[in-house]
Amino acid sequence: MARKEENIIKEKDLVLVYLDEKRQFLVQVVSGLKLSTDHGNLDLGEIIGKPFGLVGKTHLERDFYCLKPSTADLMMKVRRTTTIVYPKDLGYLLLETAVGPGSRVIELGTGSGALTLVLAKLVAPEGVVYSYDRREDFIENAKKNIERVGYAHNVEFSCVDVAEHGFRHTDVDAVFVDVPEPWAIVPKASEALKGGHHLVSWSPNVEQVKRTVETLESHNFKRTKVKEIIERELLVRLQGVRPRERGITHTAYLIRAQKINAARINSKS
Amino acid sequence: MARKEENIIKEKDLVLVYLDEKRQFLVQVVSGLKLSTDHGNLDLGEIIGKPFGLVGKTHLERDFYCLKPSTADLMMKVRRTTTIVYPKDLGYLLLETAVGPGSRVIELGTGSGALTLVLAKLVAPEGVVYSYDRREDFIENAKKNIERVGYAHNVEFSCVDVAEHGFRHTDVDAVFVDVPEPWAIVPKASEALKGGHHLVSWSPNVEQVKRTVETLESHNFKRTKVKEIIERELLVRLQGVRPRERGITHTAYLIRAQKINAARINSKS
Amino acid sequence: MARKEENIIKEKDLVLVYLDEKRQFLVQVVSGLKLSTDHGNLDLGEIIGKPFGLVGKTHLERDFYCLKPSTADLMMKVRRTTTIVYPKDLGYLLLETAVGPGSRVIELGTGSGALTLVLAKLVAPEGVVYSYDRREDFIENAKKNIERVGYAHNVEFSCVDVAEHGFRHTDVDAVFVDVPEPWAIVPKASEALKGGHHLVSWSPNVEQVKRTVETLESHNFKRTKVKEIIERELLVRLQGVRPRERGITHTAYLIRAQKINAARINSKS
Amino acid sequence: MARKEENIIKEKDLVLVYLDEKRQFLVQVVSGLKLSTDHGNLDLGEIIGKPFGLVGKTHLERDFYCLKPSTADLMMKVRRTTTIVYPKDLGYLLLETAVGPGSRVIELGTGSGALTLVLAKLVAPEGVVYSYDRREDFIENAKKNIERVGYAHNVEFSCVDVAEHGFRHTDVDAVFVDVPEPWAIVPKASEALKGGHHLVSWSPNVEQVKRTVETLESHNFKRTKVKEIIERELLVRLQGVRPRERGITHTAYLIRAQKINAARINSKS
Repeated sequence: MARKEENIIKEKDLVLVYLDEKRQFLVQVVSGLKLSTDHGNLDLGEIIGKPFGLVGKTHLERDFYCLKPSTADLMMKVRRTTTIVYPKDLGYLLLETAVGPGSRVIELGTGSGALTLVLAKLVAPEGVVYSYDRREDFIENAKKNIERVGYAHNVEFSCVDVAEHGFRHTDVDAVFVDVPEPWAIVPKASEALKGGHHLVSWSPNVEQVKRTVETLESHNFKRTKVKEIIERELLVRLQGVRPRERGITHTAYLIRAQKINAARINSKS
Repeated sequence: MARKEENIIKEKDLVLVYLDEKRQFLVQVVSGLKLSTDHGNLDLGEIIGKPFGLVGKTHLERDFYCLKPSTADLMMKVRRTTTIVYPKDLGYLLLETAVGPGSRVIELGTGSGALTLVLAKLVAPEGVVYSYDRREDFIENAKKNIERVGYAHNVEFSCVDVAEHGFRHTDVDAVFVDVPEPWAIVPKASEALKGGHHLVSWSPNVEQVKRTVETLESHNFKRTKVKEIIERELLVRLQGVRPRERGITHTAYLIRAQKINAARINSKS
Repeated sequence: MARKEENIIKEKDLVLVYLDEKRQFLVQVVSGLKLSTDHGNLDLGEIIGKPFGLVGKTHLERDFYCLKPSTADLMMKVRRTTTIVYPKDLGYLLLETAVGPGSRVIELGTGSGALTLVLAKLVAPEGVVYSYDRREDFIENAKKNIERVGYAHNVEFSCVDVAEHGFRHTDVDAVFVDVPEPWAIVPKASEALKGGHHLVSWSPNVEQVKRTVETLESHNFKRTKVKEIIERELLVRLQGVRPRERGITHTAYLIRAQKINAARINSKS
Repeated sequence: MARKEENIIKEKDLVLVYLDEKRQFLVQVVSGLKLSTDHGNLDLGEIIGKPFGLVGKTHLERDFYCLKPSTADLMMKVRRTTTIVYPKDLGYLLLETAVGPGSRVIELGTGSGALTLVLAKLVAPEGVVYSYDRREDFIENAKKNIERVGYAHNVEFSCVDVAEHGFRHTDVDAVFVDVPEPWAIVPKASEALKGGHHLVSWSPNVEQVKRTVETLESHNFKRTKVKEIIERELLVRLQGVRPRERGITHTAYLIRAQKINAARINSKS
């Protein structure tokens, strides 16, 4: 069963180099490379062979910490070509599906690949993410992002206009839809999805949500739910505890629905 | 790689039988058993061999749907001995760690096993959850909940007073702490956790959060964050779209921190 | 100038009799009347001539307190025929207008009179609220609610179908619109309102808000704003501080706009 | 009763000159003065004698509107020496008291005078606000802010260290406390306040709230409530309706309590 992985930083590992809240960097460790910050530089080669969690000093004598990146860190620090789904939203959505190790999942669109990498990690080692986008350049960027985190073998990219040509894959365990007009994809998603399984989608505007929900309900989807997830930071400091004063107040409305088969049990018996 | 799983309901499968928002039941399908609802009964045996997504009728001629339970459904429908962490909170917390397939994770306490089963699913097929609780009866109940969802081989239970005796496992990838006095566990959790990796905890009261954060910061944890996740349902209906009028307004404050090693890089060179 | 009002409870005064959070009663003090509670009865006559703030005992020896009702108490404890605007929403809206002592204000519709009485108090002693409703029975109930709080001389009621016949009053300082189809009233409200002054309205659904805003903008209103006010209680208790766990999560979206005159300064010079 | 006020802009009037959301200016109209904006200048003298609501053009041919300032506009546009209470919070708090025309109210501290002017407007024409601050310079600035809005005769300022010397006024209808250590003021506030009437206070940190509530409860205050008011803007635009993406996420916790007399009704009878 699970063997203990060594906790040693190796060449090509992803490390979150943390100085303070304003200075945190997701780096791929390559000997010979330097990380430059306004609090001093550090040689990435020097941390190879050392354990995660170590404390070092930049050339300006500031402490830095070599931390394990969380899944959210991996998402948020991809090279971005598009806006990405937020961890607060994605965490909720993932649990609203049945996706897990071994699942076969469709994602539309690929975008920057932030969602792709989280899905890939979740379905690994045996599962696969079919990631669709119309834009070849988005897919190229996302591929690099996925390779960097080491899940390239769990993703298959397709450069297709799905609204026109549909999905190439069927009987998938879930469909994740992140496009400006999700309603236009509903019939294609229904063809690709296993009966009883989950479609999730998210949109910033109420009109998008309304039209998507109406289309889902007229296309044999049931148990539609729309949620909004609001994240609020609590600052815990010596001078007192209080919520943060300014921040993000809206990202997207989150939709989840489940596909029904047209066939009825009773007509079969 | 990923082979398509058949989408056929088998004996012992978990199915979400859905009539409407007020009538949804997570059932383990056993031939010979009946599900009774105020909208009529249905024979569970009759759905065996049928595909997920099918529509049936109760003996009172009401439609029901055989849906795939989401991970959140599995969590929320465990037999409960204690309050459980909510999906909105857990979804966020999971992404704030590096946990994935193959991880070794500590959970304290077991409680009803709702979190246990989500962690087990996430680390499967090779990983393991070390679930600790002081109460044998909680562990017995949780075991049944885990067996029902099929992840028993990914969980090891320990009936231990951790505050006194510490954890039996070391070098784990994450520690999840769900006890009334999380601060008392911090030194033990630090011993069990890999350097640079994540401790997460959650508590309903501000005082608990404050004391836990202070203890983390005096025990070599860094990058502490406290968040609150607020879920808001948007009702999308013919007569109009609006947020739901009444609901849950607070569950818990969520804490995440990362362990630092005492040793410094510079002292080694 | 301001002379100190005596703080003595007189016949006909409104008093908030407070036992605990679940037992608080807005009563009009009449000698000979009894207040019955599940924690015992008390003679209202007995508190006449006593100061506000006193502590008494019911016949079951439970403490009660004679408190001054707040404006919100007066609103929330009217005899209701309809849903009423919440203090959290109204407090915000009042400050978004220029209404104060001496103002002349239109309200549509009267409903239960909860808003009417707050407006009447705000414009007193010289101002006036023109309160419109189509339903005579609503007006009759509201009249009693207003008389009870002592502001009857600051309110004039009109039983009119405003959508059809318009308002009877012009050059008012503000128009408060609380009807299911606010957009239908916008042209009439514009005729009644002084240039540069405020129309406010509130609706539970997004579609209502959208249509009202669009109508306002096509009818020479400017500086339209839509807000939602969310109230969250913080429970401060010995065992810990935390937000209340369940409660109201939506009441209404609040709209404010200001009327522009068609005439231009430049065309006059 | 209420006579119609003319809606004509006069010398010394306060006018909200509105070009668009980013260009809105509260100005006191003085002939001979110019308002300069990055969209052009306008002569204030030119709008004297014109009605509120008129449309003009700057010298760069951009439209501007002469709007009536709301009470919130008056608050938010004072010359600030300190942070001020927000309209969303103050609107709620005002309704949680019984303050209205003719009330005698204490405010501590004066700060920038934003609250002072709203209270003065609310108690006018006969009532009075006793505004206390330790800092003469704050009072001087606030006086100018109050004079500008025309409520100087409803305010009496006192430059006193209240924590040490107490209030000079007694039997007031409400006490508004806006200082960093509200708990230190509670005994003094209790002496100044009428029995059964309201003390309100607000603080950004949980610890401040907790200590204030505990002090209130040990000093014969009852019916203590703590609320947080969260304001959320809904953007209604052609391209879609959605909440604003970034904004203010915390200002203060709001406390309200009512004073109880030590004397008991029963001991008097």
